[in-house]
Amino acid sequence: MTDARTVRLAVVQMAMAEEPSVNDECAERLIREAAAAGAELVVLPELFRFWYFCQREDYAKFDLAEPVPGPSTERFAALARELGVALVLSLFEERAAGLYHNTAAVLDADGRYVGKYRKMHIPDDPRYYEKFYFTPGDLGFRVFDVAGLRLGVLVCWDQWYPEAARLTALMGADVLVYPTAIGWHPEERDEAGAAQREAWETIQRSHAIANGCYVAAANRFGFEPEPGGPGGLEFWGSSFLFGPDGVPLARAGSDGEAVLLVDVDRARMRRQRQGWPFLRDRRIDAYGALDRRFID
Amino acid sequence: MTDARTVRLAVVQMAMAEEPSVNDECAERLIREAAAAGAELVVLPELFRFWYFCQREDYAKFDLAEPVPGPSTERFAALARELGVALVLSLFEERAAGLYHNTAAVLDADGRYVGKYRKMHIPDDPRYYEKFYFTPGDLGFRVFDVAGLRLGVLVCWDQWYPEAARLTALMGADVLVYPTAIGWHPEERDEAGAAQREAWETIQRSHAIANGCYVAAANRFGFEPEPGGPGGLEFWGSSFLFGPDGVPLARAGSDGEAVLLVDVDRARMRRQRQGWPFLRDRRIDAYGALDRRFID
Repeated sequence: MTDARTVRLAVVQMAMAEEPSVNDECAERLIREAAAAGAELVVLPELFRFWYFCQREDYAKFDLAEPVPGPSTERFAALARELGVALVLSLFEERAAGLYHNTAAVLDADGRYVGKYRKMHIPDDPRYYEKFYFTPGDLGFRVFDVAGLRLGVLVCWDQWYPEAARLTALMGADVLVYPTAIGWHPEERDEAGAAQREAWETIQRSHAIANGCYVAAANRFGFEPEPGGPGGLEFWGSSFLFGPDGVPLARAGSDGEAVLLVDVDRARMRRQRQGWPFLRDRRIDAYGALDRRFID
Repeated sequence: MTDARTVRLAVVQMAMAEEPSVNDECAERLIREAAAAGAELVVLPELFRFWYFCQREDYAKFDLAEPVPGPSTERFAALARELGVALVLSLFEERAAGLYHNTAAVLDADGRYVGKYRKMHIPDDPRYYEKFYFTPGDLGFRVFDVAGLRLGVLVCWDQWYPEAARLTALMGADVLVYPTAIGWHPEERDEAGAAQREAWETIQRSHAIANGCYVAAANRFGFEPEPGGPGGLEFWGSSFLFGPDGVPLARAGSDGEAVLLVDVDRARMRRQRQGWPFLRDRRIDAYGALDRRFID
């Protein structure tokens, strides 16, 4: 069996303004740029409509949320349809009053809303107070058939979990995409910054290797102040696309907008998995304890 | 809670001769060198007593196997006792006539045989015909309390499986060690060699990151001919030790003997896991399908 056709995937790196409409316009401009370069599927960074509001626990921020599907999927569905590109949109979902998710919506190239993934692993660290805002996803791990690909969608903190990548790959994902918002605490950057970014890249690269599939992350860049506080976060950009052998195919800098393009080639994926047949040898008889918190 | 004490771990990289007694002597020399440098635990490469015989399927090679515990654990127990170092010995185990395992034996610093791990994931690729020789392990994933550490032992092909690393880490391993025999097909080296070695390093580094523990691999180096054939394998050395943040602490070259030393520091591990608390947020309610072959 062979797949002659490749699918051009674009990963967008952008900086966010405080005003959502400005970010919508920026995202639209970069999606148009990607489509003009032949992209058939475009991935935007996590929560691209906002400054990363999780730097503080602020009740007022819940007013930013919206239903999914809702106004943002409608706005971008029109663009998807016009350009003939599928989109992954990371949104702040209001499911009910008092119930919110960090949700990625998937639109196909005809503008059709295909479905959503709700971030399963929710972080909570200083200036990343996501457990205050987001209920952990209850839709499980998911794939979406769009733009001629089987697309696995995961979000940011999910990237640290090999389990999430594996389960999504086992559903047949050709590519795993991670809309992301990760950066440095400026006061830690000198000491730990390089190791942190390298760990972030390494763990996702390892998902490509372990699963023999493409992996991409779309991150934001630039400094965003801590609302009402002295701190802030320096988002580190560095968006990337890895091939199914773990080789970097495209990488953005730590600063600056980028539209990264890679042709996803399932024939290459198939050859890679035949050569290094990790899926063949999984010891599924011995993995039962992975659903334990700790083995003590 | 704090752990003031660190434990010095040594990883040995060596080249193998055809004659087992020569390899025993080489291993002894390098263990003595490690002990003289203060090592409390020494890890040898996979099947260090032999040329990598799995390059061909040859019934005669089963005669190389021995019980575990058996002659080799006895020989090296005397050395462990003399030097006061714990050892990880990768051996070719005969469990019964017609039943063989790729087994790592663990000896404590007083020479006591502590237990064994039988390689769970068995490869089978051209010149790595391990499925002919080794029955997949049936002892599950294991940790051993030796030299003041909780040691997780895995072997070579296991290194490609995040499940193996995770399960061993969930048992409380401070360090995962991988006796290894991996190299290039000389005819592929120019095209794919760099990517292969980098993937190998990346996947193991990712286990350190995902689990916040130390990870080490002990590989062989040098060319070994394919018995009776035109080929052979160029083992790529490159043994390493990574810290719980994924930072490389020691690395050997692709050629040459090495005794890599690292002080395993559980206080550092604890700080790392507190800072990046991945274990806290695992979605154990959603991992059930990891015991499926494929989700189709």
